[in-house]
Amino acid sequence: MSGFNISVISGPNLDRLGKREPAIYGTATLDDVHRAVEEAAKARGASVSCMQSNCEGELVTAISHAGDRGFHGILLNAGAYTHTSIALYDAIRASALPTVEVHISNPDGREPFRRRSRIAPACMARVAGFGPSSYVLGLIGLLGHLEKLRSDERG
Amino acid sequence: MSGFNISVISGPNLDRLGKREPAIYGTATLDDVHRAVEEAAKARGASVSCMQSNCEGELVTAISHAGDRGFHGILLNAGAYTHTSIALYDAIRASALPTVEVHISNPDGREPFRRRSRIAPACMARVAGFGPSSYVLGLIGLLGHLEKLRSDERG
Amino acid sequence: MSGFNISVISGPNLDRLGKREPAIYGTATLDDVHRAVEEAAKARGASVSCMQSNCEGELVTAISHAGDRGFHGILLNAGAYTHTSIALYDAIRASALPTVEVHISNPDGREPFRRRSRIAPACMARVAGFGPSSYVLGLIGLLGHLEKLRSDERG
Amino acid sequence: MSGFNISVISGPNLDRLGKREPAIYGTATLDDVHRAVEEAAKARGASVSCMQSNCEGELVTAISHAGDRGFHGILLNAGAYTHTSIALYDAIRASALPTVEVHISNPDGREPFRRRSRIAPACMARVAGFGPSSYVLGLIGLLGHLEKLRSDERG
Amino acid sequence: MSGFNISVISGPNLDRLGKREPAIYGTATLDDVHRAVEEAAKARGASVSCMQSNCEGELVTAISHAGDRGFHGILLNAGAYTHTSIALYDAIRASALPTVEVHISNPDGREPFRRRSRIAPACMARVAGFGPSSYVLGLIGLLGHLEKLRSDERG
Amino acid sequence: MSGFNISVISGPNLDRLGKREPAIYGTATLDDVHRAVEEAAKARGASVSCMQSNCEGELVTAISHAGDRGFHGILLNAGAYTHTSIALYDAIRASALPTVEVHISNPDGREPFRRRSRIAPACMARVAGFGPSSYVLGLIGLLGHLEKLRSDERG
Amino acid sequence: MSGFNISVISGPNLDRLGKREPAIYGTATLDDVHRAVEEAAKARGASVSCMQSNCEGELVTAISHAGDRGFHGILLNAGAYTHTSIALYDAIRASALPTVEVHISNPDGREPFRRRSRIAPACMARVAGFGPSSYVLGLIGLLGHLEKLRSDERG
Amino acid sequence: MSGFNISVISGPNLDRLGKREPAIYGTATLDDVHRAVEEAAKARGASVSCMQSNCEGELVTAISHAGDRGFHGILLNAGAYTHTSIALYDAIRASALPTVEVHISNPDGREPFRRRSRIAPACMARVAGFGPSSYVLGLIGLLGHLEKLRSDERG
Amino acid sequence: MSGFNISVISGPNLDRLGKREPAIYGTATLDDVHRAVEEAAKARGASVSCMQSNCEGELVTAISHAGDRGFHGILLNAGAYTHTSIALYDAIRASALPTVEVHISNPDGREPFRRRSRIAPACMARVAGFGPSSYVLGLIGLLGHLEKLRSDERG
Amino acid sequence: MSGFNISVISGPNLDRLGKREPAIYGTATLDDVHRAVEEAAKARGASVSCMQSNCEGELVTAISHAGDRGFHGILLNAGAYTHTSIALYDAIRASALPTVEVHISNPDGREPFRRRSRIAPACMARVAGFGPSSYVLGLIGLLGHLEKLRSDERG
Amino acid sequence: MSGFNISVISGPNLDRLGKREPAIYGTATLDDVHRAVEEAAKARGASVSCMQSNCEGELVTAISHAGDRGFHGILLNAGAYTHTSIALYDAIRASALPTVEVHISNPDGREPFRRRSRIAPACMARVAGFGPSSYVLGLIGLLGHLEKLRSDERG
Amino acid sequence: MSGFNISVISGPNLDRLGKREPAIYGTATLDDVHRAVEEAAKARGASVSCMQSNCEGELVTAISHAGDRGFHGILLNAGAYTHTSIALYDAIRASALPTVEVHISNPDGREPFRRRSRIAPACMARVAGFGPSSYVLGLIGLLGHLEKLRSDERG
Repeated sequence: MSGFNISVISGPNLDRLGKREPAIYGTATLDDVHRAVEEAAKARGASVSCMQSNCEGELVTAISHAGDRGFHGILLNAGAYTHTSIALYDAIRASALPTVEVHISNPDGREPFRRRSRIAPACMARVAGFGPSSYVLGLIGLLGHLEKLRSDERG
Repeated sequence: MSGFNISVISGPNLDRLGKREPAIYGTATLDDVHRAVEEAAKARGASVSCMQSNCEGELVTAISHAGDRGFHGILLNAGAYTHTSIALYDAIRASALPTVEVHISNPDGREPFRRRSRIAPACMARVAGFGPSSYVLGLIGLLGHLEKLRSDERG
Repeated sequence: MSGFNISVISGPNLDRLGKREPAIYGTATLDDVHRAVEEAAKARGASVSCMQSNCEGELVTAISHAGDRGFHGILLNAGAYTHTSIALYDAIRASALPTVEVHISNPDGREPFRRRSRIAPACMARVAGFGPSSYVLGLIGLLGHLEKLRSDERG
Repeated sequence: MSGFNISVISGPNLDRLGKREPAIYGTATLDDVHRAVEEAAKARGASVSCMQSNCEGELVTAISHAGDRGFHGILLNAGAYTHTSIALYDAIRASALPTVEVHISNPDGREPFRRRSRIAPACMARVAGFGPSSYVLGLIGLLGHLEKLRSDERG
Repeated sequence: MSGFNISVISGPNLDRLGKREPAIYGTATLDDVHRAVEEAAKARGASVSCMQSNCEGELVTAISHAGDRGFHGILLNAGAYTHTSIALYDAIRASALPTVEVHISNPDGREPFRRRSRIAPACMARVAGFGPSSYVLGLIGLLGHLEKLRSDERG
Repeated sequence: MSGFNISVISGPNLDRLGKREPAIYGTATLDDVHRAVEEAAKARGASVSCMQSNCEGELVTAISHAGDRGFHGILLNAGAYTHTSIALYDAIRASALPTVEVHISNPDGREPFRRRSRIAPACMARVAGFGPSSYVLGLIGLLGHLEKLRSDERG
Repeated sequence: MSGFNISVISGPNLDRLGKREPAIYGTATLDDVHRAVEEAAKARGASVSCMQSNCEGELVTAISHAGDRGFHGILLNAGAYTHTSIALYDAIRASALPTVEVHISNPDGREPFRRRSRIAPACMARVAGFGPSSYVLGLIGLLGHLEKLRSDERG
Repeated sequence: MSGFNISVISGPNLDRLGKREPAIYGTATLDDVHRAVEEAAKARGASVSCMQSNCEGELVTAISHAGDRGFHGILLNAGAYTHTSIALYDAIRASALPTVEVHISNPDGREPFRRRSRIAPACMARVAGFGPSSYVLGLIGLLGHLEKLRSDERG
Repeated sequence: MSGFNISVISGPNLDRLGKREPAIYGTATLDDVHRAVEEAAKARGASVSCMQSNCEGELVTAISHAGDRGFHGILLNAGAYTHTSIALYDAIRASALPTVEVHISNPDGREPFRRRSRIAPACMARVAGFGPSSYVLGLIGLLGHLEKLRSDERG
Repeated sequence: MSGFNISVISGPNLDRLGKREPAIYGTATLDDVHRAVEEAAKARGASVSCMQSNCEGELVTAISHAGDRGFHGILLNAGAYTHTSIALYDAIRASALPTVEVHISNPDGREPFRRRSRIAPACMARVAGFGPSSYVLGLIGLLGHLEKLRSDERG
Repeated sequence: MSGFNISVISGPNLDRLGKREPAIYGTATLDDVHRAVEEAAKARGASVSCMQSNCEGELVTAISHAGDRGFHGILLNAGAYTHTSIALYDAIRASALPTVEVHISNPDGREPFRRRSRIAPACMARVAGFGPSSYVLGLIGLLGHLEKLRSDERG
Repeated sequence: MSGFNISVISGPNLDRLGKREPAIYGTATLDDVHRAVEEAAKARGASVSCMQSNCEGELVTAISHAGDRGFHGILLNAGAYTHTSIALYDAIRASALPTVEVHISNPDGREPFRRRSRIAPACMARVAGFGPSSYVLGLIGLLGHLEKLRSDERG
């Protein structure tokens, strides 16, 4: 059992998942996504804590305090703030935790303004375009990374 | 009587209307504007519900949940977030309601950074530059649009 | 009765209104629009004079001489010249009359090259996206503005 | 015999063809070009009607009304307006006719400002750089396209 | 006596000179300017022919045919078309006559979009910012240039 | 004693000061900074009131209402919002109070996206790069400015 | 057992994996990666076929013919061609197969020229930054997607 | 009989013609196109030699050696390399042969990145948008050009 | 007699006039130019003082101190510093004297980097492209301007 | 007593301080500023040496040799060279001394070309917008920094 | 004798050297260049191995494997790929060998698109513009560098 | 003996060579470099004259007068002015002498602002990145070029 504890954070409009533009985002709700992530974590001996906020400031707080609150890594879908927020970029760096950027759709294949990720340079990895499965794949990758770090440390 | 119910949403710094830079924005307060919109709606058999917030996240919530809360359309003055917020753009699209962008001043005639509206591609229309009357004109146009949609549907 | 006299000017391709790309521009013809504007003016004790030209130079002349010809304000749909013509911008400033920019569709929500309005900095206001109703809403707003100016002058 | 009727439209400065910068544009006059196009059309059972204007507005009118005037397609050398005119772009779309963009020289190989064609996205095809023969080749291609459309329709 | 014949061409909104924004353009009318140019030409044994048009196409015609009409040089105030018209650039080159660009105000010191002259690369010289005197100074410079060409030719 | 009352406002991630990237931001906490500013104010007969928020909307409110709340000036470290927020720019102008922009590090010497300050055009001055001392130096400069204004007024 | 057959394609310099800049790319070789992908496929009842080429043209061929060769999806690490190749973009679209873009490192966090993916708009998804595990995660996501498509089809 | 020998060269993904995105590129295969070009050449007493490669380097070789191999001109559809390859531009100039750029679709009317042709400044002409007929029209134009050169030389 | 005293200032490389690239700059030396300006001034009852320096700093000093040294206006050919020097722009504004920008050639018709004048926004006028006569024409225009100012003052 | 020795360097046009555009720069002369800095230094047991030059090369020399000449830090107002000079940037780095950038006005709030500081990435800090007090505040901050460095070293 | 072994690699179109545009590239063939480089190497006790390819992928392979193949450094003329290829940049870094970029002509003095070298940031040095001598000078410089490294290592 | 006389000119901050950032520029002083160049010249029967200045104006003078002073070529390290100075570009062209641009480091591999050379289009060649040896290699290349020119002339 890994024992890792992951903070799963979703940003603006993701509370509308399943109701909003299903042609792009599918019909699963955010609760469905959270349940899938929890199960995937449990199956790997890890735990997650999920939150969502439309407010950039609350996301900044959740990210930058994640280390103090006992998390080992962050799974972040920053929604539209991905493309505009330097504050989130700073928060990720302030957290000093490995952070994986996830997206339901593949932003690079949509409007041009979705091609710039403000937060990517502070993230270790990105998973995008698999629908809700992006969260689960991101979690697996993040847990693998933490496992590897721990085994490297133990030598 | 139209029976339409419109969400009137104002963004950052609009709580200062009437006190802030009167040369640009005039002397009417936001309460004055709300009263004018309410009267115009009432005169057309419609109702409005007005709110203001300086917080982008609260605006996102108000917009994206407007349909669930029983509104038929949105009248939105996003203030400075007009020029920077992709989250509001996403929220308008998530709402799937006809949305009219209104502005007290005419942003295209001011600083260059006010010439780009992030939210315009998600809005059906824009009214700008008439002072507080922009709200009333926007409401009339929005109600006309809804009326026309209804009559088209009824065939 | 207001007694105001408004010059209503439409630019290139608007003679094709109702025949051209109805999915974007609707089925009303320019004559229909002119009639609607005339009625709205009459109902408010004002009068309008409508013209259309595909030629940038004729639009420049109509605008820059509008004051000498006894108009109190201009309602202008410059069509595609909106995005390219500095000459129209100069003409509006030369006219020294309050000018309202109107559009059938909402240009900011279409091709990127429609997002820049060359004439906006010379206009007091903009109404866009309400179909032919944009003309009527623009007229109401312009008459309200002129009324307010007169009542301010009279103290 | 095809029976197609094509509108051949030439823009600014093309009345100077044969006199203007022969190193770039050759020595044939616009009358020579018109004769060559007429012969090529006749040989294919089609007819053409040729006009030239230095005025953007007259070109807009000629293009946008071409369908009403009984033309089946447009052969357009918009000269310098190619690079600046959104009004012509709108006119071509308003015409709803297949339009072929032709050029005497090859604009992409000249000054940088000739590399952007404002009208290309509304045109079905382009022929450039063959001197006056560009018109004839464009006509052949356009007639072939119309023939194919007709035979497709007839199934 | 020089015997040179100069075409003096003024573009959009210059018919409003003296009435339009006097803080920028002064109080002299275009007729005053024409008289001053005529006198300056006469004093130097030259003649001028003055025209004004708001229509880009008419300016194209006037310029590109100037050589055929017996002019030895062109004095051109293209107004706002200076900044947008490639057609005028082509016309000047098509004319093959020495052309001097003149401006009442100094465009480089005004709005950024007035800093680019589309026609300058086709002009031999520019005079700007001296008010109506720009025309007279431009004429003197142009006549001097023609005189020098003639004396060079005569060896 | 000056009697001036200054609003000291810090933005996103500054609650992490002392814990976040000490190589860039040092080891002093925001509480340490607040104490230093309070002492510096007291020593000059002035008072300060300090707040921090990660939420752009709360910063907008704090700034735009500062005048009504009895402050004479604002000391603002807007953190990452410095580079993206037009809403803060509007709030500073709405406040009509002299505002000094302070930064712990020197943003111009870091990532390119930190070189643009959205709020600078609304601020009277900037102090950056002295670590926590930037706040104290900014306060001294602001008090000096207020003192000078008062003595100018008293003549 | 899924029975899906996936084409795993790696581009320029990936034959140097494990030898090239291990601080960025790690010590696993491309053979190690291929083995891991094969095992992961096998464990899910799928099969993969792996190839690598430094030549853009060979990658174009491998991708555009993948459907004809019996593959159901593509896992593509285009290396540096990711940022420059429109030919690969066309090839992916020509293949009409679901394609997942994978990267060892997280390109968005490196040099600016790695932030633009030419191929992303043609890809359904992206996985980046997990080291060699990016391939395995991409495969799992791709198989999940194909499974879902099949079950949707079967209704 | 002209006796001219033309090298017909097609670039990346054109081997997929007829199978790839038929809505854009039609249903004719590259073999069909080659046959049509051969017939058109034969009918004019000329001969062609056709090749296709997905590899930029092979195209460079084919073009730059075309003169040595006895060709009098080149018909080139460079596919996606049109927009990115300076090496092809250099190869065309190295060949010193008249080269006509052809395209099945009209690239200027598609994605923005297809609007820049790297090779156009080295080509004498362009034909685009007529489907496979672009090749035939390009050939006719090229043979006409060679014929004219020869008759000028024999002058 | 006007009695005006003008500072004539020439910048880098103008000491090479007549020796440097005569195809662009002609064969007159700077001494010739100075003599022509002196004569033109004398003929109008004015005097000039001419200097040249290759050093930006000396030009800054000459310009910014011109008022203190008794000059009424400045005739400035800043050479290549025209396009790069904000220090000269500041110096002209610091001088508070009417300044005319002159150029031997017409910079707008040459390399693109010569199209931006850093100093133009601080200058009242520009004369360019008349060869050495640009200086004389600029002087005449400047003296006319000063004369007009004086006559306006005397009312 | 600190014993620190600071080089105070002012660039182009600052010799005009107090005479030049007092609305922007105030009425204090550079001598006044130097006296204020000297007093502030003396009060803190430090000494300063002040110089000014309009010549970029002399500023380069003063800065790059400052260490050899016994200075411990640099206070630099580079005037307009701030925005254009890479040579000064190199000189500051060559000096290896802590350098504080000071400005009388707040450049970020003025013309756009004043928003880019070429030298900022080489400076430890910036003070701007306090009028002549910017120098004194910059000195205090610089001395504090040096004091801290010394106490850190002494451990 | 140095004993160093250098890989000399030439890219697209360099097989045409001596035949292609001799005004720019001279009359020496690539064989001539290879002989000159071999002689210069031999004279310094070093050896070279020369290859040329038009294919980007083959160049990537040659560079990235150079170390494994026993070379101590690379002399690279990447031709047009210099300006477009990130894959070559990656290959040079993957090789971890000192690489000198050479060019026959001076690319910075030609078309604008030749001013950006994609590979320069991975190269230790550049020699350009000396014709075929660029190769020999580059070799001398590279051998000098290797010699110096060796003598530094030997202490 | 060649008898050629070369002007070796070094720009801003190069007097600090050997003391400034040795990690980038090495430990040799400018005197060391000058001695190496002198020896290399002497060994080839040529002579050099070396100078250094931090002042752009003095460099302009040295370059533009080099021909009059009897030099046959110029070896120029313009330091930071390389990237900003059009005046040096003009001076090199004014000199009409073959000029080789040399750099100690490889500017293209450093900060982005070092990638643009303003002077390159006026230079025949560039050598960069070999440390002080860049000067010697540049000299050898320049002498070879002069030798070749002489032997070509002598035929």
